[in-house]
Amino acid sequence: MSAVDIIVKKRDGLELTREEIEFFVRGITSGEIPDYQVSAWAMAVLLNGMSAQETTDLTLAMAHSGTVLDLSGVVPLAVDKHSTGGVGDKTTLVVEPIVAACGLPVGKMSGRGLGFSGGTLDKLESIPGFRTNLSREEFLDHLKRYGMVLTGQTGELAPADGKLYALRDVTGTVPSIPLIASSIMSKKIAAGAQAILLDVKVGLGAFMQTLDSASELARLMVAIGQRSGRQTIALLSDMNQPLGNAVGNALEVREAIDTLHGGGPEDFREHCLVAAAHMLMLGRKAGSLDEARAKAEEALVSGQAWGRFKQLVQAQGGDVRVVEEPDRLPEAPLKEIVPAPQSGYLAVINAREVGETSVQLGAGRVKKGDPIDPAVGIVVHRKVGDRVEQGQPLFTVHASSQEKLDAAVERLLAAHQFSAEPVEPLPLFYGVITEQDILQKE
Amino acid sequence: MSAVDIIVKKRDGLELTREEIEFFVRGITSGEIPDYQVSAWAMAVLLNGMSAQETTDLTLAMAHSGTVLDLSGVVPLAVDKHSTGGVGDKTTLVVEPIVAACGLPVGKMSGRGLGFSGGTLDKLESIPGFRTNLSREEFLDHLKRYGMVLTGQTGELAPADGKLYALRDVTGTVPSIPLIASSIMSKKIAAGAQAILLDVKVGLGAFMQTLDSASELARLMVAIGQRSGRQTIALLSDMNQPLGNAVGNALEVREAIDTLHGGGPEDFREHCLVAAAHMLMLGRKAGSLDEARAKAEEALVSGQAWGRFKQLVQAQGGDVRVVEEPDRLPEAPLKEIVPAPQSGYLAVINAREVGETSVQLGAGRVKKGDPIDPAVGIVVHRKVGDRVEQGQPLFTVHASSQEKLDAAVERLLAAHQFSAEPVEPLPLFYGVITEQDILQKE
Repeated sequence: MSAVDIIVKKRDGLELTREEIEFFVRGITSGEIPDYQVSAWAMAVLLNGMSAQETTDLTLAMAHSGTVLDLSGVVPLAVDKHSTGGVGDKTTLVVEPIVAACGLPVGKMSGRGLGFSGGTLDKLESIPGFRTNLSREEFLDHLKRYGMVLTGQTGELAPADGKLYALRDVTGTVPSIPLIASSIMSKKIAAGAQAILLDVKVGLGAFMQTLDSASELARLMVAIGQRSGRQTIALLSDMNQPLGNAVGNALEVREAIDTLHGGGPEDFREHCLVAAAHMLMLGRKAGSLDEARAKAEEALVSGQAWGRFKQLVQAQGGDVRVVEEPDRLPEAPLKEIVPAPQSGYLAVINAREVGETSVQLGAGRVKKGDPIDPAVGIVVHRKVGDRVEQGQPLFTVHASSQEKLDAAVERLLAAHQFSAEPVEPLPLFYGVITEQDILQKE
Repeated sequence: MSAVDIIVKKRDGLELTREEIEFFVRGITSGEIPDYQVSAWAMAVLLNGMSAQETTDLTLAMAHSGTVLDLSGVVPLAVDKHSTGGVGDKTTLVVEPIVAACGLPVGKMSGRGLGFSGGTLDKLESIPGFRTNLSREEFLDHLKRYGMVLTGQTGELAPADGKLYALRDVTGTVPSIPLIASSIMSKKIAAGAQAILLDVKVGLGAFMQTLDSASELARLMVAIGQRSGRQTIALLSDMNQPLGNAVGNALEVREAIDTLHGGGPEDFREHCLVAAAHMLMLGRKAGSLDEARAKAEEALVSGQAWGRFKQLVQAQGGDVRVVEEPDRLPEAPLKEIVPAPQSGYLAVINAREVGETSVQLGAGRVKKGDPIDPAVGIVVHRKVGDRVEQGQPLFTVHASSQEKLDAAVERLLAAHQFSAEPVEPLPLFYGVITEQDILQKE
């Protein structure tokens, strides 16, 4: 077996065996297969595709390229959640406390924002003192003690995926559905997940811009879950407009706190309850989705979820006073409430533009490692389908300088489009994909 | 402009501009574009193709990545010839003396053998003393003085092609027709060619195994010639069975000498005369192909071509006595004449197998830089279509050891197939492609 033979086979559109994929992934991990062979292979995969079995083999080989966390001694059933990323997606901050409050322990490793897409770690770090760099030992200890932990990767999970992703990033081979699916699933499996809820975003502010491509990705990831013995469910959720109202780190933490208090934007609250209900089902904490939903709602209404959130902040070194009095969160020096320039029905709030604008304000990164400003961001006050009268508040910009504020206002005004005719609100979800859907189609 | 943008454009099947291709080739040459980006791009080119204009732009950019030889002060019109490589192809050894004898000066840079395919330099070096490493100054000086020179590359021609080829070789991206075409044509243009005769081999013992792929390559190279102002003609010639009878370096030199004396195998002699006639037409030494052919034949019959060959050997330091008395050429210690195992019509002499067997005997290389044995090789005595009686000599093996000889005999017997029914001889040529053919189709 040689790397060239494997490249040639994929170049010619043939299916790779498990042995070939394992050989290739071992070579990526050890460095014995040089970058130029890996990138040629990645391009061949992007252009010729991979079957569900090949993608599963790749996922498992990458997951096992480093240590695979074994949580079996720590939690009865390790349930994890993954969002493919979007604008204003602070779901984890609310869903994890809800399911923990319902008795489902969740240890989650999150990521940082890049480009238009935000990251949970950045949001949490706007709470002074909050540590996102727990060691593997701390991760396991917190999970056991509190039934809840939210941190960055502990140690190197799926190192082959890390190397492959870094190469894909500079060789035009990111947008391959099998490579995206295996990258996501390998990290979840390496982090010890036995059941996985996927939130696959679709729309202007998502990586998958069409329902077709999002469905393909979702189905492939559910198939990987099924073939690797990890029960997996995928939600297809809207990301044409921002989720909730707030976009920006401290602003999103504040919105999450509002929601944990039983308030918050209706769309975001609903999104969290649906996600929590599916996680509770995966974790066998309810006999039906209705029962799970009722439990999640009760955790929110009773204040139990809020209590778990405070516990999480305290456990990871965060300043609990700040989340109890959110006015203590970092605040931008400049704020401007921007009125609607015209009356009409809101037809578009371009989530990608909102996300990019938040990056320009300093809330996100152009490239890895860039510093971010926790205080700045955007709050939209209306959603697609709303009737808006000229002069009513449309959005608020939180900025660090007048120049950035002015640029953001201009860009955000262009990101809002009005219609004279009534406009349907956007759905929150486009569908749910379960293993049964996959099996029926095969 | 960035390398990733160019990769993405080709990945998405779009046409690259001349500026983009020049940027990319500059980056390959300087090393600023890393290998992993070049190989991802090469795979995208292989799978998505390139237009004739893109391939021409790539050819010219690679040709100009180093010094482009200017022969305008040395010869009136620089005509070059290129064979895509095969088994028993000693054409250059005969054609160059013929056209030189007809008053067309030719300076040619040849290559070495690799795998089943032989190389002119290796053949020449079986003449003791023959130098194939002339400097650029010697190349120009010999061309001016003798109107004839045959050597390896002087200096680094088309360095971008050299780097790209080395990467393609280890990333499964060799068999891309646009990349093959631009590699060949860039080196010819860098070597100063103003008119080019291409001998595109097709069949079992060629890189192009089907007439379709050979025609596509030939048409593309003629289109590159047309678009870059280099008159180009391509012959499509058979390489299912070896060309001529001899395969192996000294054995092929001996066959070339026989041919220059007016003898030699009929197919090889005819192949040389056709190639020479086309070169004379390209070099404007004849008004019609018939006239050119007559001149070439006259050069052969009159002994003038033979005289030029001896002059070439002498000029480049070779021992002229050896070519005057070919028994002085290196000779293998073991020779075995193998009789036909059955009677019948010869249906197949698998040129690839004959080539691979000659490599096993030591006449060729498995990998670059391997040493070769000039003496060993194979002479086939019959050609496809011949009626052969059991016991008549079928082929002779020249070997350095009994073990190698026995293995070669077995493999060569399997490479010959007989038919009870009469078999048509193989054609020498499948067609000629000129610029007019290209223009008519566009």
